[in-house]
Amino acid sequence: MTSAPSCDTLIRAGILVTQDAERRILHDAGIAIADGRIAAIGPWADVKSAFRPASTMDLADCMVLPGLVNCHTHAAMTAFRGLADDLPLMRWLEGSIWPVESRLSPEIVHSGSLVACAEMIRTGTTCFTDMYLFETETAQAVERMGMRAVLGEGILGFPTPAYTDASRALAIAGELTEVTAGSALVRTGIAPHAVYTNSPETLRESFALAKRLNVPWMIHLAENAEETARCMEATGKRPVAYLHDLGCLSPRSVLVHCVDLTEDDISLIAASGAHVVHNPRSNMKLASGIAPVPALQRAGVNVCLGTDGAASNNTLNLFREMNACALLHKVAHGDPTAMPAPAVLDMTTANAARALGWDGIGVITPGSAADIIAMPLDEPGLCPVYTPFSHAVYAAGGHEVCLNMVAGRVIYERGSFTNIEIEELRDHARKLAEWVGTDGKSKTQN
Amino acid sequence: MTSAPSCDTLIRAGILVTQDAERRILHDAGIAIADGRIAAIGPWADVKSAFRPASTMDLADCMVLPGLVNCHTHAAMTAFRGLADDLPLMRWLEGSIWPVESRLSPEIVHSGSLVACAEMIRTGTTCFTDMYLFETETAQAVERMGMRAVLGEGILGFPTPAYTDASRALAIAGELTEVTAGSALVRTGIAPHAVYTNSPETLRESFALAKRLNVPWMIHLAENAEETARCMEATGKRPVAYLHDLGCLSPRSVLVHCVDLTEDDISLIAASGAHVVHNPRSNMKLASGIAPVPALQRAGVNVCLGTDGAASNNTLNLFREMNACALLHKVAHGDPTAMPAPAVLDMTTANAARALGWDGIGVITPGSAADIIAMPLDEPGLCPVYTPFSHAVYAAGGHEVCLNMVAGRVIYERGSFTNIEIEELRDHARKLAEWVGTDGKSKTQN
Repeated sequence: MTSAPSCDTLIRAGILVTQDAERRILHDAGIAIADGRIAAIGPWADVKSAFRPASTMDLADCMVLPGLVNCHTHAAMTAFRGLADDLPLMRWLEGSIWPVESRLSPEIVHSGSLVACAEMIRTGTTCFTDMYLFETETAQAVERMGMRAVLGEGILGFPTPAYTDASRALAIAGELTEVTAGSALVRTGIAPHAVYTNSPETLRESFALAKRLNVPWMIHLAENAEETARCMEATGKRPVAYLHDLGCLSPRSVLVHCVDLTEDDISLIAASGAHVVHNPRSNMKLASGIAPVPALQRAGVNVCLGTDGAASNNTLNLFREMNACALLHKVAHGDPTAMPAPAVLDMTTANAARALGWDGIGVITPGSAADIIAMPLDEPGLCPVYTPFSHAVYAAGGHEVCLNMVAGRVIYERGSFTNIEIEELRDHARKLAEWVGTDGKSKTQN
Repeated sequence: MTSAPSCDTLIRAGILVTQDAERRILHDAGIAIADGRIAAIGPWADVKSAFRPASTMDLADCMVLPGLVNCHTHAAMTAFRGLADDLPLMRWLEGSIWPVESRLSPEIVHSGSLVACAEMIRTGTTCFTDMYLFETETAQAVERMGMRAVLGEGILGFPTPAYTDASRALAIAGELTEVTAGSALVRTGIAPHAVYTNSPETLRESFALAKRLNVPWMIHLAENAEETARCMEATGKRPVAYLHDLGCLSPRSVLVHCVDLTEDDISLIAASGAHVVHNPRSNMKLASGIAPVPALQRAGVNVCLGTDGAASNNTLNLFREMNACALLHKVAHGDPTAMPAPAVLDMTTANAARALGWDGIGVITPGSAADIIAMPLDEPGLCPVYTPFSHAVYAAGGHEVCLNMVAGRVIYERGSFTNIEIEELRDHARKLAEWVGTDGKSKTQN
């Protein structure tokens, strides 16, 4: 004669990393899920007796965390993964990436986005932020795979395969809201590519559009010293000051890279309430430099993490991005206490939710989205466990993830994706390689 | 009426990365294995028709590489994985590691070594180099797990749980050859811990012992500026010059870390023929600095990679070590062409074999050891494939490894270890945590 309320799923978690405001960690915890949201968390015995679940899930041998949030990528660039590495930036872009990109099509963006979603889901990401062309295709891929995303059509001040000019780009960028309207999973952002690829008018108009739509405005900014030099030459100002003077810095602004910053730049960003997305692996691989993340954080700037695209990383795996972030700043500052693990995990959870203005993701607490990942604690590389934060940031590589759940629905479990077969993914990857047209075999075979 | 010779195993490999002198890559290749060695490689059709195999293995959807060789670790320190991070070095050692290590026992080294072997096998390592106490226990763990190792009892000039003084340490170090004699898998090295933990006499005696036994001599050297300062104060010389003047630099010498080097140090190392083991992740995490690897390589020094122990990494995963190496030196030198992928893969294969004086490992070529790993090419994070070297160094995280074979015997395949059950590994990990005695729960639970 129980009067316990019903719930959809009841999970028993060996270790639950909540990422709530107190960074609580619960051992032998229960998680009740109803209507895609967390109904309750607490000691297993308590939660178990408080709900009548439609199904239960035993993760008693697992560490359970909120799904991670990738604040910057170019999903469809999985097509270029490993196409060319170890090259100077301009030779890489001009010789390998741009000639192929000029032939970009909606079909390729669709295939590339599916492969990207699969990799992200496989390695514990539940939500990502994208900037590329033909984003309606990415939206379809994301919906199908069952994860979340904030998608922005990349706005460039020259013709692309997706549009003829900047005004058409702005129109397409705005129209994406019609595609994502009503979706519980996909949202729109406005994404001018950079200050050096757009006119000041387009930058201002795109910012006004983001304001009108009430969505994030995201841009590559201050990625390296060369960008600064070009901006100084064209505008007489450094990139951050230039954006500031255009009125484009606000809590709506999501500034990607921010490697080449002065103290004044940091102060401007901090005063504006803009967010910064740090992409340590891409910045390392392209030798762009080391973003002054500790200084940004000291100034009060909200910093999150992004993987950038597979062309310059070459993975979309946030566990490896967290690890790179934690290690890089320690050695860069000669300080083993720099970038402690809990602060780094915040960058892919709470900080990311704040930057994207997406309440209820990046945390496991009553009322939040049921976006949950799990990794087994009997994985040899994850045992023994003393401090779960340490394992998430320093030990885990991402492939330990055995469960990925978004909005209460399992989208990956122990080798299988719920919404796509591995054979179809292989076909999409083959399509990408054929489109790129580089015969990998003839380049490397003897 | 075929007269084809028999072989034990015939493998069909989608992509075969040989790491032979020409760095050949074969597509749709055959590998014939007999008596634990490679009998032949070549196009699948040719090798298939040339042998009568006892068994066949279809890796047509996989990339196959030589097993990786880890040139420096402390296997049993898996006990300390994640015990304490984000701390200044001396607070970490004095507050967390040393008090527990003073209670070290053979049983703990045994359990810790088994967990370490499992992690290394799981992530594609087939051979490692170890320095710790009670190494006969590590030898037993390695033999049981079926991988290869070069083991050196750590020699310290003060009492440890394993011995009372340096002369007893030297005796134990030499006696290890009796344990490893006759083993096809385990070899001995002589491993004085560092210049600051040993007298000049012990260093010289240990080097003479290595010479007499004809085995590698390995030592932590020039790990950070503090070590240099201590050495200057105690001896009036920098660590490399000090070792040189003691007569301890030769092609038998394996110098671990080598972070704090001058041009003169590099010249001394190069002239001696000594090898250097680079441990980028440990050096980053402890903020020790960045080893001048490109300069060492330009000077002709053979550089390989090590993970260091799980206490300071926190993984024993060479794929992540290769990745860190490739990315770190690019950003450190502002040069995206620094540390190209093929050179980095050499550091865990051919270069490692050379440093350890172990012919026939780190390569897949007729006559070499049948030490082979494979990763599936339909893993979303590994597709499409243009350049296998790129995927090995930039994309792979290690957990994609689906097969680990040593001396022709499968020791890991798709989630299962041949020689240990995951439940037993979990028990060993539990034993380690109980021994450490830190109650992870009470430290982190709210």
